[in-house]
Amino acid sequence: MANLQNRLDDTFHALADPTRRAVLATLSQGPATVSDLAQPFDMALPTFLQHLKVLEQCGLVRSKKVGRVRTCQLRPKPLEDAEGWIGTQRTLWIKRLDQLDDYLKQLNATEKRK
Amino acid sequence: MANLQNRLDDTFHALADPTRRAVLATLSQGPATVSDLAQPFDMALPTFLQHLKVLEQCGLVRSKKVGRVRTCQLRPKPLEDAEGWIGTQRTLWIKRLDQLDDYLKQLNATEKRK
Repeated sequence: MANLQNRLDDTFHALADPTRRAVLATLSQGPATVSDLAQPFDMALPTFLQHLKVLEQCGLVRSKKVGRVRTCQLRPKPLEDAEGWIGTQRTLWIKRLDQLDDYLKQLNATEKRK
Repeated sequence: MANLQNRLDDTFHALADPTRRAVLATLSQGPATVSDLAQPFDMALPTFLQHLKVLEQCGLVRSKKVGRVRTCQLRPKPLEDAEGWIGTQRTLWIKRLDQLDDYLKQLNATEKRK
């Protein structure tokens, strides 16, 4: 459980940056080289590599170097865990609203019978 | 679009902390007072209030003070946006895997016909 909590900390931290989210959005369409991933961003390569490092450290991205070319690919598991956590809260929230709705309908019906 | 990006930055940053996630998990089951929310955590009240401030600033929590009691409630919209962003990446990823699967099946069928 502590491990899952730590992984969620790292995943949500990784997602809290527009550059890292844009990299993930590109990789969700297929693997890409570091050069291709860095190209759209107006930042120094070392800065971009720091962002990639954050994504690799939390397991959202895996990279492999063949010759002089490093290729990255998305690993969806941490995204699924993050989505799962949010989904659980939403389910609880909707369930509570439904209960509130049932209660109000019941109250309304009781009032009408009076 | 820039506004949505900023909101996602703030929401994912808010979610990157176990105390803040625990507060949201409690509030997804209904409103709660600040004292009740703070009670399970072994931390000074000002530290806890800082966490609540982060949640309020990104719009995940709204609070109201009546007399001396401040009550908090969850606002689900930022959670829905965050879930939506992750869901989009997952859909793209699954679509790509399906395309890859179709291609491999086609390749296999062509090989068998030879």
